[in-house]
Amino acid sequence: MDTIIETPPALLADRFKTLRYDEAERAVVVLNRRKYPFQVEYVTLRTVEAVAQAIEDMTVQGGPPLAYVAGLGLAMAARDLDASPTRQAAYLEQVAKRLLATRPTADDLNHIIPMALGVALAALREGHDPFRPTLDAVNAEIERGNTVSRLCGQHAAWLLCDGDQILTHCIAGAALCWMLWTAKQSGKQVTLIGCETRPYFQGARLTAASAQEMGIPFKLITDGMSAHLMSTGRIDKFICAADRVTLDGHITNKIGTLQHAIAARHFGKPFYVLGYDGPDPTTETGAQIPIEERKPDEIFYAKGEEGTVRTAIHGINGYYPAFDITPPHLISAIVTDRGIFAPDAVRAYFD
Amino acid sequence: MDTIIETPPALLADRFKTLRYDEAERAVVVLNRRKYPFQVEYVTLRTVEAVAQAIEDMTVQGGPPLAYVAGLGLAMAARDLDASPTRQAAYLEQVAKRLLATRPTADDLNHIIPMALGVALAALREGHDPFRPTLDAVNAEIERGNTVSRLCGQHAAWLLCDGDQILTHCIAGAALCWMLWTAKQSGKQVTLIGCETRPYFQGARLTAASAQEMGIPFKLITDGMSAHLMSTGRIDKFICAADRVTLDGHITNKIGTLQHAIAARHFGKPFYVLGYDGPDPTTETGAQIPIEERKPDEIFYAKGEEGTVRTAIHGINGYYPAFDITPPHLISAIVTDRGIFAPDAVRAYFD
Repeated sequence: MDTIIETPPALLADRFKTLRYDEAERAVVVLNRRKYPFQVEYVTLRTVEAVAQAIEDMTVQGGPPLAYVAGLGLAMAARDLDASPTRQAAYLEQVAKRLLATRPTADDLNHIIPMALGVALAALREGHDPFRPTLDAVNAEIERGNTVSRLCGQHAAWLLCDGDQILTHCIAGAALCWMLWTAKQSGKQVTLIGCETRPYFQGARLTAASAQEMGIPFKLITDGMSAHLMSTGRIDKFICAADRVTLDGHITNKIGTLQHAIAARHFGKPFYVLGYDGPDPTTETGAQIPIEERKPDEIFYAKGEEGTVRTAIHGINGYYPAFDITPPHLISAIVTDRGIFAPDAVRAYFD
Repeated sequence: MDTIIETPPALLADRFKTLRYDEAERAVVVLNRRKYPFQVEYVTLRTVEAVAQAIEDMTVQGGPPLAYVAGLGLAMAARDLDASPTRQAAYLEQVAKRLLATRPTADDLNHIIPMALGVALAALREGHDPFRPTLDAVNAEIERGNTVSRLCGQHAAWLLCDGDQILTHCIAGAALCWMLWTAKQSGKQVTLIGCETRPYFQGARLTAASAQEMGIPFKLITDGMSAHLMSTGRIDKFICAADRVTLDGHITNKIGTLQHAIAARHFGKPFYVLGYDGPDPTTETGAQIPIEERKPDEIFYAKGEEGTVRTAIHGINGYYPAFDITPPHLISAIVTDRGIFAPDAVRAYFD
């Protein structure tokens, strides 16, 4: 069973491989997820504003990764402070506010930034340099995130059957890699069916690359095909991640998820959510999740290997909600690092 | 009321504006729907094989338009035949077979080609030149198609309410233009919400252009957003066309339609189908509709104003069913040139 404990051979399975604080560069270094895997480009972010913009423009994306990068940005800001402790604290609070304002929907950012800020302010109060303890705290969170991903994925692997054709949407991150890798190591042959996920094609790029790196058979479809594939017996299960899970079992995830969930219920296919470290203890229900609305311009283009082309005519309006909310009655189970929960009982995660 | 009888000011509302037989060129001339409206390019097709390939590569698309172009191709083939009448007949039968093999799902092709071939063979049997009667018969069908579109669209306009936000998918053709134009002329202000419709972006180009040409407010979304918009009160009705309607009320339409139909039923929104000239009398039920599966390569790219880019990584598989089938219990009504039918009773079209 030793092989199962090895990290899956997919770049996105280990967060430290795609984001880190570089001591020599005194900067945050992140994989550019808008270009990967067409280009493997790491971006060096030397200012808080650069970190914030990399999150906003989706150079780094996914609830936990973007939160880690923000946390590293806060640690970076805590280095070489030269004003009085009071002004240093005020500055770090400003930095935290800027980073928290980048993207509203996923909950990880709302945990990591206050945690990192708390560590930095405590150090300042005690007369210590806040940089090292803040960086250590964020790195510990990234390490914890890797462990959560492994446990969540390993639990989810039990839900798979040999021969399964598994629909996924967008990029479900490290837990999906762990799930597929664990299933493969235990002899289950599954096929991953990935929606390309407009407008940024995360499925056609990031998820496809992860499957390819692990040797998992992958089949690409467009976002409108899932119901047809379910109706013709070509999808057995729908599995994706969640940017936030609520205490009453709602989940939010990349726009398009709700449509697949409704189709899965219509055709009697299970829908499992990779819930990582469980519900957000501060969000009771779906109506409290702020759905980010991004600039309509972003859906008028397609970015590919050779560059960007305009796919919509000029002079029209567009609407780009980046996430949608799926209610618990459409979800079969929420899988976490602490086990598998019925959506209505996901609050038991904290017991 | 006179203004309602005017053809809507959208290029796609009048079939003769996008496809015709050019007597001087001795060729079929069609609007390139893969480029419109980024470029208004008309393609001159001088051989049967060129006509067949223009249908296969979607230079011309949509059930009736591609059938008309095939019919004009058959008429072109009937010009200047120089062999014996028997060999001429055999040749035209070969031509008909080639044209019928281009695309399997829509029913219009299956009506127009046998009809045009019948006219040509009858002329040959009577010792006449088959070209003129064949061309006249196809042109009469195009003229009839324009009338059907007008009547279907005018009936559909009665289903709209002032203030409606109407979801549509792909391009619903001339009847959609007539519906929107008639509603507008009668003082109903509606907004059209168009899915971009991957992989060819017909919604972002063709439907958007038609709306723009008629001054109808248009909002673009990606194919995965409809359920979210329904869940937040941003869509009142879903209306699209059908490539084939069966006698028991199933419809087939561009892939993605089924997903929107299931979501519409889930959220209690009506789904109206623009059924043009009614069900196909030779297709009893949905299981008899052949669903075209196109080359997976076509979903790995995005074609835009500046050219084509690869949006999927290399070395993966894909799956591209071009249509899906929606059963009658998910459809609120099928609108035809002869009025509005309950899906289960659409057979009454022939009464």
